Amino acid sequence: MKIMFYALREDEKPALAEWEAANKDVEVVATDELLTPETAKLAAGFDGVVTFQQLPYTRETLQVLADLDVKNLSLRNVGIDNIDVDAVNEFGIKVSHVPSYSPNAIAEHSVIQLTRLLRRTPEYDKKIAQRDLRWAPEIGKELRMQTVGVIGTGNIGRVAINIFKGFGAKVIAFDPYPNAELAAEGIYVDSLDELFAQADVVTLHAPGLPANDHMINAETIAKMKDGVFVVNVSRGNLIDTDALIAGLDSGKIAGAAIDVYEDEVGLFNADWRGKVFPDARIENLLNRDNVLVSPHTAFYTETAVGQMVKIAMDANKTFIMGQVPDVVAKFN
Amino acid sequence: MKIMFYALREDEKPALAEWEAANKDVEVVATDELLTPETAKLAAGFDGVVTFQQLPYTRETLQVLADLDVKNLSLRNVGIDNIDVDAVNEFGIKVSHVPSYSPNAIAEHSVIQLTRLLRRTPEYDKKIAQRDLRWAPEIGKELRMQTVGVIGTGNIGRVAINIFKGFGAKVIAFDPYPNAELAAEGIYVDSLDELFAQADVVTLHAPGLPANDHMINAETIAKMKDGVFVVNVSRGNLIDTDALIAGLDSGKIAGAAIDVYEDEVGLFNADWRGKVFPDARIENLLNRDNVLVSPHTAFYTETAVGQMVKIAMDANKTFIMGQVPDVVAKFN
Repeated sequence: MKIMFYALREDEKPALAEWEAANKDVEVVATDELLTPETAKLAAGFDGVVTFQQLPYTRETLQVLADLDVKNLSLRNVGIDNIDVDAVNEFGIKVSHVPSYSPNAIAEHSVIQLTRLLRRTPEYDKKIAQRDLRWAPEIGKELRMQTVGVIGTGNIGRVAINIFKGFGAKVIAFDPYPNAELAAEGIYVDSLDELFAQADVVTLHAPGLPANDHMINAETIAKMKDGVFVVNVSRGNLIDTDALIAGLDSGKIAGAAIDVYEDEVGLFNADWRGKVFPDARIENLLNRDNVLVSPHTAFYTETAVGQMVKIAMDANKTFIMGQVPDVVAKFN
Repeated sequence: MKIMFYALREDEKPALAEWEAANKDVEVVATDELLTPETAKLAAGFDGVVTFQQLPYTRETLQVLADLDVKNLSLRNVGIDNIDVDAVNEFGIKVSHVPSYSPNAIAEHSVIQLTRLLRRTPEYDKKIAQRDLRWAPEIGKELRMQTVGVIGTGNIGRVAINIFKGFGAKVIAFDPYPNAELAAEGIYVDSLDELFAQADVVTLHAPGLPANDHMINAETIAKMKDGVFVVNVSRGNLIDTDALIAGLDSGKIAGAAIDVYEDEVGLFNADWRGKVFPDARIENLLNRDNVLVSPHTAFYTETAVGQMVKIAMDANKTFIMGQVPDVVAKFN
């Protein structure tokens, strides 16, 4: 049994080595190259392919794999929207992904970034770098004193809620599909408007469905409390960036932490040193002391990366053995 | 009834205004000057004095107050070790302090700084400032995957434990005077050595008693796990700074967050821009990406400062009315 592993990163090596040690019946060959029509040829003679990339899986790429009779494709990431579904169906390629690897990685990041804003660490960091060790005037806020409004109570939102509770914060939540356990605790408000009216912090843990597009916009920001903090570690399309910037400019929004951005593809996880961003809005956000932009790194922990490698490799092996893994991709 | 309020800071003004509004029978005069033999004269005709400073309360200062028959002194801080106790007793000056104002302020800070180290935000901040938006190689660790060793389970340690539990971390603790509730949970280990052997994170919430002096030293660091994280938001004397630096140099210690420092008086809460620190060790620590130094700001939240003002003013008023407040200073 032979699996070709594409797009290997340095941080994935420990997890891959661990998997290989536990699966001595599988021969794994790894490369740091992405899966393209050209590199797909490397898979000749292999039973399956495992990869992780934002690059599209085009008909052309899938055709090369199919011609080599390599019909087991396992992605180490969540997203499957960059796959040519017609080609997958036509060639009979089986696809798996990693729908959940570590909700904690993302939930922790959201809370950490929020607390940094509450304690004004960006301003302190600048002062301390200059060797100004005075306290005032950057006085902080305690998380336990905040009413945190959690939008979306799936896996990640629920982990975030547990963390907020540990801090002693008051948590309210909204989700069109409430969780029974949380509902019994009385944590839900009846509408987003009610959440906006009460929350000192609005934190987004909702999917990027079209219905949620620009859920945070000029109109909804106007419904929020003055001095609100906004956190988005979910999907970039949830926030209308122009409205966010206007809210920061007016002081309505006291601070924002974003790990995602509506036009992030090609922008995040790239090196822009010495270059000009194609989008002045991200530069605007990066230059504010009360905004923390992280380039989609919320997921990026040893635990999460280890799970991505393990789940994808397990799934690929399951395909090769003629079975269907739990994490098979379901295209709509 | 008249109270003279010294060393007023900008961030204390909201809390003082609130107290005055609720205590219209008291006339308050505030100055930003510290209480010295010279400024003590300003208290002539007042019934009490409220202040907050690291500057010593010398016999000379206390003499001026006693000569003016101002014998009610309320400090807005915890420490009473900078007061000439003999003079206090001789002149019959009543003293109060604020033994506890917000354990959460300090506990939250300790966890926030730890999570910043775990997620390698100092390195990311530098990259992002240069517009390098790549993820790798600064992969983070999740707090929930850590075994956190809490030394000291007083008010602050217990709040920290609740926060760590909210993250889902495994918590172990040591305290020579165990808390019954935590003991029932089985959270305590039998010795510091056992804690050092198991903990991925060692966080100090112990008092700065002589018995605890340099509790973290070369010998105890050697007992810790390789790649341990050390957090100190308690008292500077708990850590032997030379041993900490050696542990960081060798890689034994993966990261450290300190809000206190053994030689911090005159160093923290001062502006050192353009000057050279008298102590090369703090410069050494400040220059490391895996060390976060905060200048004793863990306490510095709106809630804590508000409590300091309120508790001190309430105590001073209680003294003036001839009663003894709960927060009367107990000199040993």
